[in-house]
Amino acid sequence: MHHCWFNGTITEFNDTKIHVSDLGLLRGYGLFDYFRTYNQKPFQWDWYWERFEKSAKMLRIPNPIKKEEAFAIVNDLIKKQTEEECAIRFILTGGYAPDSVKMISPNLLICSESLHPSKVEEYENGIKVISHEYVRDIPLIKSIDYKHFMILQQDIKAANASDVIFYKNGDISELSRSNVFMFVGKQLITPNENILFGITRRTVIELARPHFEIIERNISLEELLEADEVFTTSTTKKVLPISQIDDTLINSGKVGEKSKFLLQLINDFVANW
Amino acid sequence: MHHCWFNGTITEFNDTKIHVSDLGLLRGYGLFDYFRTYNQKPFQWDWYWERFEKSAKMLRIPNPIKKEEAFAIVNDLIKKQTEEECAIRFILTGGYAPDSVKMISPNLLICSESLHPSKVEEYENGIKVISHEYVRDIPLIKSIDYKHFMILQQDIKAANASDVIFYKNGDISELSRSNVFMFVGKQLITPNENILFGITRRTVIELARPHFEIIERNISLEELLEADEVFTTSTTKKVLPISQIDDTLINSGKVGEKSKFLLQLINDFVANW
Repeated sequence: MHHCWFNGTITEFNDTKIHVSDLGLLRGYGLFDYFRTYNQKPFQWDWYWERFEKSAKMLRIPNPIKKEEAFAIVNDLIKKQTEEECAIRFILTGGYAPDSVKMISPNLLICSESLHPSKVEEYENGIKVISHEYVRDIPLIKSIDYKHFMILQQDIKAANASDVIFYKNGDISELSRSNVFMFVGKQLITPNENILFGITRRTVIELARPHFEIIERNISLEELLEADEVFTTSTTKKVLPISQIDDTLINSGKVGEKSKFLLQLINDFVANW
Repeated sequence: MHHCWFNGTITEFNDTKIHVSDLGLLRGYGLFDYFRTYNQKPFQWDWYWERFEKSAKMLRIPNPIKKEEAFAIVNDLIKKQTEEECAIRFILTGGYAPDSVKMISPNLLICSESLHPSKVEEYENGIKVISHEYVRDIPLIKSIDYKHFMILQQDIKAANASDVIFYKNGDISELSRSNVFMFVGKQLITPNENILFGITRRTVIELARPHFEIIERNISLEELLEADEVFTTSTTKKVLPISQIDDTLINSGKVGEKSKFLLQLINDFVANW
């Protein structure tokens, strides 16, 4: 069973509702963040909090709580829930508007949720993604704007794929909710423009640094299709190999050894969190 | 007092809440439409419904009700409310998602609301707008995505302006929630790309056609600044003159005669609705 803290009050997740005058619902004026526990402890809390505060500032929604208070709420929600590990979602919106436009006071919601990890077969076989020309609107902000991904869900399913990779003007940026890396020889390359800077991306870069040459730069879709290995990183996916992009097999459709090595590195790292 | 119809149940507006797993709130996956009554009758109902259905189709959210049923709900809500005239808002979202991503069944909300008409002084003096480089994401859809406008509210206030006009690659598109027209001699010109096709825009074009040469084409920001008259159209604004864009006065900052004439035309038209 999960709970939500909503502007100071904790209720059961199933009973947590928001009034329909909320600017997140009316005007898409909201942001979120999402992290998980390992060993019942919030993973990379400092980094997630830093990003959440940055998103709020860029979207000009005042953040109503301090880090210490938020940390106490998070730990309270983790204790209240009954699964071994869980996810935590922060949602901050422009709050209730009397006239559907004016921000008076923000709404902050913090909920525990069940995890939806990637499947074992996905790690073993890699996933297929489709490509789509688009770049996220204000990509540095973890806003709630996922309309393009939502529209594309039918196409993803029809292609028997798991996700979509976005490219614009020839260069790739990210998947719908995760970052992208490629191996070319001993170089590990990942974009550093037009992306949300993922916390798992940052973790993987730190873990990989002693073993590979890390390069952050634009990557064209053409280049990516010819890479030795490609993988995606996110809170729930960790290091998940991509074995097919549209009709092109990566590494002949097999999961590469270097990606496996990085997955092992992060698995070891989180086991000791 | 206002009410909402939410997936078949009518409740008081103040008591109408939505569960926090809604994809409108979590993923910005939602659209809306908004119209008003004149003489207690929904204005241009057929056109608004047509646009609502089109938005839903483009956003790939199934519309759960038929036109006749929606019309009965709208009239019920109008009867239930106590003001002389009111507005009606439709909100359609991807519905509740068990995993924050998957659409199962949409949520449809229909509420009556109080009107927030433009002020008399605004019609007499015209409004000031600031310009900002941006074009709405999938402009043909009346999605809930207004994050850029929300972010800009501080700048609009600081400039002592009422709204923002968006331009991209030199060409203007629309204000935050309304269309733009300009008079150059006897030509009435309005953009027809990268805009939401407003119902008031359509009404004004029909009313103006016998009196002026109507031209729908791209308009550069430079051209607009040199126009004889500029005005904006929306459900609540009707025909509202724009007398200043950034530091540039339009028609020396005075409301032009042709704009006044069009406002009179639409005022007469709605009086007999």
